[in-house]
Amino acid sequence: MDNVVGVTRRYDTISFLSDFGHADEFVGVVHSVIRSIAPHVGVIDVTHGIAHHDTRSGGLALARAANYLNPGVVLAVVDPGVGTARRPVALEVGDGMSVLIGPDNGLLAPAVGLVGGTTRAVELTNPQYRLPANGGATFDGRDIFAPAAAHLCNGVPITELGAEIDPASLMPGVLPISHFEDGEMLCEVLWVDHFGNCQLNVDPEEIEGLGNELVVQIDGEDWVALRVDAYDQIPTGRVGMLIDSSGLLSVAVARGSAADELQLGEGLEVRIKALDEADRTGRSTPVELGSGKAET
Amino acid sequence: MDNVVGVTRRYDTISFLSDFGHADEFVGVVHSVIRSIAPHVGVIDVTHGIAHHDTRSGGLALARAANYLNPGVVLAVVDPGVGTARRPVALEVGDGMSVLIGPDNGLLAPAVGLVGGTTRAVELTNPQYRLPANGGATFDGRDIFAPAAAHLCNGVPITELGAEIDPASLMPGVLPISHFEDGEMLCEVLWVDHFGNCQLNVDPEEIEGLGNELVVQIDGEDWVALRVDAYDQIPTGRVGMLIDSSGLLSVAVARGSAADELQLGEGLEVRIKALDEADRTGRSTPVELGSGKAET
Amino acid sequence: MDNVVGVTRRYDTISFLSDFGHADEFVGVVHSVIRSIAPHVGVIDVTHGIAHHDTRSGGLALARAANYLNPGVVLAVVDPGVGTARRPVALEVGDGMSVLIGPDNGLLAPAVGLVGGTTRAVELTNPQYRLPANGGATFDGRDIFAPAAAHLCNGVPITELGAEIDPASLMPGVLPISHFEDGEMLCEVLWVDHFGNCQLNVDPEEIEGLGNELVVQIDGEDWVALRVDAYDQIPTGRVGMLIDSSGLLSVAVARGSAADELQLGEGLEVRIKALDEADRTGRSTPVELGSGKAET
Repeated sequence: MDNVVGVTRRYDTISFLSDFGHADEFVGVVHSVIRSIAPHVGVIDVTHGIAHHDTRSGGLALARAANYLNPGVVLAVVDPGVGTARRPVALEVGDGMSVLIGPDNGLLAPAVGLVGGTTRAVELTNPQYRLPANGGATFDGRDIFAPAAAHLCNGVPITELGAEIDPASLMPGVLPISHFEDGEMLCEVLWVDHFGNCQLNVDPEEIEGLGNELVVQIDGEDWVALRVDAYDQIPTGRVGMLIDSSGLLSVAVARGSAADELQLGEGLEVRIKALDEADRTGRSTPVELGSGKAET
Repeated sequence: MDNVVGVTRRYDTISFLSDFGHADEFVGVVHSVIRSIAPHVGVIDVTHGIAHHDTRSGGLALARAANYLNPGVVLAVVDPGVGTARRPVALEVGDGMSVLIGPDNGLLAPAVGLVGGTTRAVELTNPQYRLPANGGATFDGRDIFAPAAAHLCNGVPITELGAEIDPASLMPGVLPISHFEDGEMLCEVLWVDHFGNCQLNVDPEEIEGLGNELVVQIDGEDWVALRVDAYDQIPTGRVGMLIDSSGLLSVAVARGSAADELQLGEGLEVRIKALDEADRTGRSTPVELGSGKAET
Repeated sequence: MDNVVGVTRRYDTISFLSDFGHADEFVGVVHSVIRSIAPHVGVIDVTHGIAHHDTRSGGLALARAANYLNPGVVLAVVDPGVGTARRPVALEVGDGMSVLIGPDNGLLAPAVGLVGGTTRAVELTNPQYRLPANGGATFDGRDIFAPAAAHLCNGVPITELGAEIDPASLMPGVLPISHFEDGEMLCEVLWVDHFGNCQLNVDPEEIEGLGNELVVQIDGEDWVALRVDAYDQIPTGRVGMLIDSSGLLSVAVARGSAADELQLGEGLEVRIKALDEADRTGRSTPVELGSGKAET
């Protein structure tokens, strides 16, 4: 009888991520709903800056943060299909150490995969743990997801929130895979951060042996990139590559935005290969950012 | 003797809304002042993204959130007249269940009206519950409003904060009224949200009977809008109308910004009428967003 | 034996400032790390809107907020040199009332100076109080600074965090000094706030006696500014000067952005002098903002 409603407090942290932004009261209303149901809970705002409706970006942000989140409930709402047939779900991971709540649209998949998959999944169908919709079915974050998260924290068993569903039926997250082709690493930009650093879907070990200087091809243009250990080791005017705080390869420039300087954006293709001396001779090194690209 | 200072803790939540934004330390300083006076209080940031000095937008956001806020103190600061003769006030509602604190400039009026009006109003004149101004009289959020909110939470009676004033003397909020004229609903955009959805000052019941497709006139151009129940039911390239999460009629487009696509902004006039077959013939349906408006 | 690890809880507030913005999960991850180590702590977000890598702006924001922060730990991360030889430090102030944690790059200097200097300084070298870097040394906020702040709150003595260093070896903050030259006050813009008000590095007492109307020279153009006590006392179309909420002289316009109207930005030079009657005759007064500058 571990899960008697109102007696056992199962969780005391909700980690909350969305594409709601901070211009409106959406985030504040969700916080208010949680507090009104489960006042003991601490809510951590992971981020609400995910691009509108961008479930891929939201899923990646959640996966990057996952290892640092407190045990408890993860509430993630990037939900272009709100009010349609897509299912609102709760996914138990780590044998109940945490539960992820959100729409079944791939958003939760990368984080769930990272921690070894879900051990139990339910669809949030029980009207007892929802708020009444105020007119339109357009704010499930407020009316379905937040109440479910808060009630879980109060000790409501996950199986009370709705019918169990087959984890195999959940929408997978689609992550791009990098690969070598003709000696070139074909990859893409996973994430452009606030500073303009561009994370690639490349494990640094994959390009071991390509050397300390690399040729990075972006939209048909070649750049000579220098491997460094810290952003501030990139010489002015050069492109740098380093292992970022997620452990992935990242493209950066000295105290500026690589995304702006190199015209990179999320999802764009990047090719990486070893620098040979012919390349070096044929190119201006260091590349002068702002004044033109490397000549080929 | 319920309200003895420092003994009774009357409130444990402050819901905080402002136009301070997140670029500066304004919000953080207000949080710090509250915590230094009333460390037991949980502060919910409703939003700080209200457009500069836009008391109408701030008042509407507060009213939209009001039904979801926790009982306690509401601290609202959109205050272009800071330091002038406009009065700083505290307004008790629901016989003391909550108190709204802010400038008497109409900002609090929509939320207060929504919950049945104020039962007691005071002007925040008591210097004992203010911080000393640091030079200029330019940050009443920090020096007057936040301390008043925190002291209320500590059990200071509202009547200690200053002299009672006549609720009838408070500045009203001015909300635009929609109306029918020659078979057309004349209304306006109340709110453009973060996603670009445009909320109208129209109760959906008012346009019942106008049918499943409607003609929406914006700046002299006609658009054919489809009534839907969820944003994602709007076909690509079409304009949709649905009941939003506040229970009002809203104009949206498929996974995009209606405000951008239709050149809509807060306060702009919109006309709605039934679609007759002549209209349909004379118009391209579906409207091709991005490639031009419906031909008339 | 006041500081036994895990027994004495020394602090219950961390005031957190950074240039991380809200687009990514950086702020949320730091909150999560703190909560996982020291769940009793309340974290106040001072601001995360500091311009990228702008240690001067960050230091000034921290100094403006300092008098209002709760005793405890201040965690400040604006750190372009992350991962390089610049030292991560903890600086005790007020005989232990508070500790400032961040990079030794001048960011902490203005706030530390304001409260009378540091009484003990350590470099954060003890690996026991760090998180393992996840690949690259690029997120010291998460891996070094936040854990140090949280462990301090748990009662870990500051001297456990690393070796004591000489406070005289800390990088100073460089604050511009205003001065009079040929009857003109030469100063600069310290801060442009969210509303576009421009704070100058001028104590109002310095320009006492220059009168109620002043000539403000910006980029070679003269404007006639009116001394006022509140923003809303500035007549439409005029430039105003007032004492702002930090106690410094500030340039503003009526319900608009002085930065936009006057083309002012942080670090730009401003000259102030008394208005003589010749000036007045030769100038259009009031200045018509938007339609041109004062003629000279």
